[in-house]
Amino acid sequence: MLGDFQEIIKQALAEDIGPGDLTTWAVVAPDTPACARILAKEAGIVAGLPVAARVFASLDTDVRFSPQIRDGAKVSRGDTLALVEGRAETLLSGERVALNFLRHLSGIATRTAGLVQAVASYRARIVDTRKTTPGLRVLEKYAVRVGGGHNHRFALYDGVLIKENHIRVAGGIGQAVSLARVRVPHTLKIEVEVTNRRELDEALETGADIILLDNMSPDEMREAVEVVNGRCLLEASGGITEETVVAVAKTGVDLISVGALTHSVRALDISMDIEILTPPV
Amino acid sequence: MLGDFQEIIKQALAEDIGPGDLTTWAVVAPDTPACARILAKEAGIVAGLPVAARVFASLDTDVRFSPQIRDGAKVSRGDTLALVEGRAETLLSGERVALNFLRHLSGIATRTAGLVQAVASYRARIVDTRKTTPGLRVLEKYAVRVGGGHNHRFALYDGVLIKENHIRVAGGIGQAVSLARVRVPHTLKIEVEVTNRRELDEALETGADIILLDNMSPDEMREAVEVVNGRCLLEASGGITEETVVAVAKTGVDLISVGALTHSVRALDISMDIEILTPPV
Amino acid sequence: MLGDFQEIIKQALAEDIGPGDLTTWAVVAPDTPACARILAKEAGIVAGLPVAARVFASLDTDVRFSPQIRDGAKVSRGDTLALVEGRAETLLSGERVALNFLRHLSGIATRTAGLVQAVASYRARIVDTRKTTPGLRVLEKYAVRVGGGHNHRFALYDGVLIKENHIRVAGGIGQAVSLARVRVPHTLKIEVEVTNRRELDEALETGADIILLDNMSPDEMREAVEVVNGRCLLEASGGITEETVVAVAKTGVDLISVGALTHSVRALDISMDIEILTPPV
Amino acid sequence: MLGDFQEIIKQALAEDIGPGDLTTWAVVAPDTPACARILAKEAGIVAGLPVAARVFASLDTDVRFSPQIRDGAKVSRGDTLALVEGRAETLLSGERVALNFLRHLSGIATRTAGLVQAVASYRARIVDTRKTTPGLRVLEKYAVRVGGGHNHRFALYDGVLIKENHIRVAGGIGQAVSLARVRVPHTLKIEVEVTNRRELDEALETGADIILLDNMSPDEMREAVEVVNGRCLLEASGGITEETVVAVAKTGVDLISVGALTHSVRALDISMDIEILTPPV
Amino acid sequence: MLGDFQEIIKQALAEDIGPGDLTTWAVVAPDTPACARILAKEAGIVAGLPVAARVFASLDTDVRFSPQIRDGAKVSRGDTLALVEGRAETLLSGERVALNFLRHLSGIATRTAGLVQAVASYRARIVDTRKTTPGLRVLEKYAVRVGGGHNHRFALYDGVLIKENHIRVAGGIGQAVSLARVRVPHTLKIEVEVTNRRELDEALETGADIILLDNMSPDEMREAVEVVNGRCLLEASGGITEETVVAVAKTGVDLISVGALTHSVRALDISMDIEILTPPV
Amino acid sequence: MLGDFQEIIKQALAEDIGPGDLTTWAVVAPDTPACARILAKEAGIVAGLPVAARVFASLDTDVRFSPQIRDGAKVSRGDTLALVEGRAETLLSGERVALNFLRHLSGIATRTAGLVQAVASYRARIVDTRKTTPGLRVLEKYAVRVGGGHNHRFALYDGVLIKENHIRVAGGIGQAVSLARVRVPHTLKIEVEVTNRRELDEALETGADIILLDNMSPDEMREAVEVVNGRCLLEASGGITEETVVAVAKTGVDLISVGALTHSVRALDISMDIEILTPPV
Repeated sequence: MLGDFQEIIKQALAEDIGPGDLTTWAVVAPDTPACARILAKEAGIVAGLPVAARVFASLDTDVRFSPQIRDGAKVSRGDTLALVEGRAETLLSGERVALNFLRHLSGIATRTAGLVQAVASYRARIVDTRKTTPGLRVLEKYAVRVGGGHNHRFALYDGVLIKENHIRVAGGIGQAVSLARVRVPHTLKIEVEVTNRRELDEALETGADIILLDNMSPDEMREAVEVVNGRCLLEASGGITEETVVAVAKTGVDLISVGALTHSVRALDISMDIEILTPPV
Repeated sequence: MLGDFQEIIKQALAEDIGPGDLTTWAVVAPDTPACARILAKEAGIVAGLPVAARVFASLDTDVRFSPQIRDGAKVSRGDTLALVEGRAETLLSGERVALNFLRHLSGIATRTAGLVQAVASYRARIVDTRKTTPGLRVLEKYAVRVGGGHNHRFALYDGVLIKENHIRVAGGIGQAVSLARVRVPHTLKIEVEVTNRRELDEALETGADIILLDNMSPDEMREAVEVVNGRCLLEASGGITEETVVAVAKTGVDLISVGALTHSVRALDISMDIEILTPPV
Repeated sequence: MLGDFQEIIKQALAEDIGPGDLTTWAVVAPDTPACARILAKEAGIVAGLPVAARVFASLDTDVRFSPQIRDGAKVSRGDTLALVEGRAETLLSGERVALNFLRHLSGIATRTAGLVQAVASYRARIVDTRKTTPGLRVLEKYAVRVGGGHNHRFALYDGVLIKENHIRVAGGIGQAVSLARVRVPHTLKIEVEVTNRRELDEALETGADIILLDNMSPDEMREAVEVVNGRCLLEASGGITEETVVAVAKTGVDLISVGALTHSVRALDISMDIEILTPPV
Repeated sequence: MLGDFQEIIKQALAEDIGPGDLTTWAVVAPDTPACARILAKEAGIVAGLPVAARVFASLDTDVRFSPQIRDGAKVSRGDTLALVEGRAETLLSGERVALNFLRHLSGIATRTAGLVQAVASYRARIVDTRKTTPGLRVLEKYAVRVGGGHNHRFALYDGVLIKENHIRVAGGIGQAVSLARVRVPHTLKIEVEVTNRRELDEALETGADIILLDNMSPDEMREAVEVVNGRCLLEASGGITEETVVAVAKTGVDLISVGALTHSVRALDISMDIEILTPPV
Repeated sequence: MLGDFQEIIKQALAEDIGPGDLTTWAVVAPDTPACARILAKEAGIVAGLPVAARVFASLDTDVRFSPQIRDGAKVSRGDTLALVEGRAETLLSGERVALNFLRHLSGIATRTAGLVQAVASYRARIVDTRKTTPGLRVLEKYAVRVGGGHNHRFALYDGVLIKENHIRVAGGIGQAVSLARVRVPHTLKIEVEVTNRRELDEALETGADIILLDNMSPDEMREAVEVVNGRCLLEASGGITEETVVAVAKTGVDLISVGALTHSVRALDISMDIEILTPPV
Repeated sequence: MLGDFQEIIKQALAEDIGPGDLTTWAVVAPDTPACARILAKEAGIVAGLPVAARVFASLDTDVRFSPQIRDGAKVSRGDTLALVEGRAETLLSGERVALNFLRHLSGIATRTAGLVQAVASYRARIVDTRKTTPGLRVLEKYAVRVGGGHNHRFALYDGVLIKENHIRVAGGIGQAVSLARVRVPHTLKIEVEVTNRRELDEALETGADIILLDNMSPDEMREAVEVVNGRCLLEASGGITEETVVAVAKTGVDLISVGALTHSVRALDISMDIEILTPPV
């Protein structure tokens, strides 16, 4: 379920190529056959090969994109990710956009995988948030899954999360949850954000299906886990990093959501080397 | 020259709200007046306030967005960036998208400003690259300028940069530059990427207007500066970071391009607090 | 939460007006001021006045659309729904599209209201389905709510409903539910379609959150209600009409989904009468 | 001349699938080969098979859609309309949208065919109107033709129909027709709506090419036919149903327009059964 | 009935400005108030002022565009067409696109007016064709009307013109006209292209409503007028220019269609002079 | 580097065909195989065959478009440009749009080639301007290249040209050039428009890379060439025609820009003849 990402590819290509790739047009003879190798310049988890493939295919249906590994594979520096054969002009014009996607998504998958591995022996799932890069949510959430993480709701339309700002406007947790129960499709669970023990009790009482523990200390989380005792799911949230994730997982929460997975991405270093094919004699 | 960013805002809102913000619809009474404060949770340079303003305006023309500072301002933790007044449902539905833009762009401006300041006493300009987030180039390049950096070419259509892959296909630097000189509009300079002294000499000889020194050591760059002696512009490129930028600037190059400004962004922490307005009695 | 329906209005106007309304252009003097009355030609529940307003506003921002009632109101033959003042050409060119929306949505609201009232004394909610008119889902689901019904999931992306076709491919109810439990965001309940007692037992055992009873007789449904005994929600579905809905509600199910609400709509008869305004002397 | 309906299919799929079909993704193994049968659950005239084919093709070019009959065929309960082979996930994700189109269009064709057959021995053509579902006009008018009906003008830009509201603004039938004659392309006939004998005479005198008899009784229509005596075409309109259509046809009018063909559609019951293909040993 | 031309303006601006107007951004201080005068550099008929106004309005709602004349006015060299006040950057960025529209459309109106005047004392209408510039049809047909010409059918969907290529495929004029009579909406006349007397007779016999005389000599046309004797409309077509139009008109045909009105446009010379406003003291 | 012109083709087809080609649908039997010949009706340089090919391909992927010459070829009256084989309905529906593109672009190439040939023995390049037809810039600039001309900047985003209006707002040539030097990407040259000797001197002094001589006499241009003496490029501009171009070239300027290449196009006469294919026995 990678979702439909053709539109963002089209935009990215329009953004970068627009009326034409001047350099390639000027210096490369039309229809020169070429082959390129996409390779890792550092170790990590790869995500986005189908996206890179589609970038080239969107420019020219004659390109042959041959992945050498699959999304989710762990690569080392120097490993080949894919071979790309076709017109030299296509390879050159599509290179940057293909790499921009691949490096960004692989960066997300790599970071996610690190966190997932760190808490592998605990019950907690690592989940993403809505703190994604505008326009790229469908791809970024895919990269999180590639890295072994799970997705939280996709957007505002497919989940109910009553946050502090809602509660303030609605006039209290109880009021907000009751309204949601009446109006929201029966297919959705209701999640509420709480910041302290009093709010936790109130949320529990109203029958929330999931409770988000916002910026709580591990001790507070542990207490919450005991209090709730399985009556609903518990999600830890708020500035959780590689340094703190294990301590959080140890508290026994069901879910750990990490905004930085998608809001502060370090691109994985990946590049492309092109060669001309020896012309058939 | 922020460029036209209405479309990406529309997409980001569609992506996040789609058929509707279920939580807000369910728990907030229509037309409840509210006020929100957008505030910094850490120090940095702010970029993107006009974008955030437009996010809310795209949802509801009755929102009043009052910036308390301007893009480019330096803020400290707790500083107010803007006040937003309007219907509570608009504020709640637009919050995440507005913040996603603002945090991302402010992250870019903050990092750029750091590098710019580090080399302030040298001739070199800090410039960006085409390693931007798909769909966000116009905004990210704006954020680089807000941070005091300069823009390199925007895309493949507005500049000529003959890179290693082009040279390989074209059959040499001289060949590539001559072709470009003939075919490319007279309004554009011609830039060539070189990786060693021999290529530098060849590029100089062909009359390149700008030479990009790819992944050279400071010593190699210094030699290039001496050899060129003002006959063309010199751009340093390749994995330059906060740690290495001063050494690069000291070599006397004219430009330092830093892909990480836009490919590995750490979001600046910014949030929004909402309150209901006291209803008129 | 009416959702964003600007795009479908734009399309409907493009579809009907295209390069221009020939008749109006030919026979009406530009800028002739006029007033029109939108009125019911039969009794029913009105839905879509904000849509009709937006149709005219999309053509001409100078139109004044004054609803005389609100969506959800019960009208009788001859009742005025709204007054529309503005240029005669705008009123004439927008009339058909505005009425097409209004009549269709009011037809849905009217039928929904009839079913809702019929089962008002039972616990069951009347809910809609995905059997909607292509392109109009957001509006049709709104009209269902206006008529007092509730919405089921909006689409394939915001709910999990494992239907017979899925079960066949997945290799059984148990297998399907377990897979869904692992992969699907924790914010969503899992619903399973069953057609007989054996499947019902299997679904219960796997811990489904909601069970859809497909085309069961009232007796079978009653048995299902007893067996389940509150452990999950029960939804009745399959050809339910005005004739059978009460019998279904009496079985004690939680939800009754009715595809015909949106797949077989009888438009409510609504028309528009235009007059020229007496010009100021 | 089915027209271009790719866009509405794209929208319908976006509307229903959006970022992804959660259920199918969760429970179905990728690339599972499957076959589905689309079959009639009640008797009627089928319309929309090319549309259904395109729905699946839009999702996945590897799907093989094999119609077993052609649009316009009369089917009985249980008849197979088409076989669909391809990936199980494609069949499951496209099912609802394909059926929504097919059921709606077949509903229109079925009703049209009934009316056409009822008046088969009279000169009158059954024609549609602009009372169509927003966004679906091109398809609905196609379905009317499939059912044996004829199309009236497609929209406001390809025909001239001076209605009561126009006449009121223009200041009389004569005035309106003269203006139209001067300004409208010479390729279009001019049609005028009349409600009584006096207006009929006026329209005839001005040389209208077609006269629409609005809500007249059969007796009034018969008189009109006699008065006109072949000097122009006569179209009967206004609430005509299966009950009244023969009486109208008997009057000798040339055209009978029926808004309900497209504004009050009863979907034809059609469903899809999926099976896994036995994998090759 | 200028039609909807917002989209083509949006594209023209995107095409010319794209990510930003570099020159203006670099050299003009933001928010500098300015005023510009749009003036004729040669004599002609002006068309397109509402389009030019919309160009500036699309960039900046604060611009005040004050036409000094109306579309259709005859101007001499030096005459002022409009004043434009607003931010200097808006005026500079929109100038070229606004002028490109205005000059092109005025060129069409000027040429049309010349032909219309030349045949003013004859019955023939000057009409346009489908030989328009791709994307600009709605505007070009408007400019023809501004110049006093009439429009032929707008496109393939709103008129029936059976041309030589159709006749060849259909197997004869009689066959083609009969098919059209049965299938085409009753609101459209049927036009047939003929190239000689024999075809003319055949077309007359089949009851064509309009006959297009393709590339006939004035003598042949005169004969056609006599033969037809008012039984249908006659349209002269084929390479008619300023030199030949009067001779054609003299033959008594009803319509003279001139492709060159829109396929070979000489732009009218119009330019824009900008001034800074004296800032308020 | 023809650029992406799929969108404008799609629009041109939508504009001309919209909901359907009535005539073809009515008179041509579906799937009739046919062949058409596209031929020159006058001598000229052909441009746009790939565009015409794409027009038909956009309608129907089964069409076989076989160019008999390549863009840039010189043709005489009667020469065949291409053969088109496929369904008769596709050929008929696509004919007009394909020819509209082909005739317009060939008109541009033909005129450009004339000017290029006229100045072939001088150093000056013939270049285009931004005075293009809205929506067609990418294609028109391509046609200029096909005719042997060169392109000026594509748009406002890929070149800096400080014109008289800019200078007036910026407060002088020196001021404007300095600002541009600081703010504009280092990859772009800076061009300034001057109208007399004094401005020329000022522009030279500020170090402009290119100077545009606006509406100067050949004598003034010759003086400018001498004064500049190779220190920057010189571009002649302003109403240059076939009559004056040689005199301008003789002055020794580097570039001659001709707006009329694209703002006042005379279409090359090209038509299409269709035949039915003898059906296989």
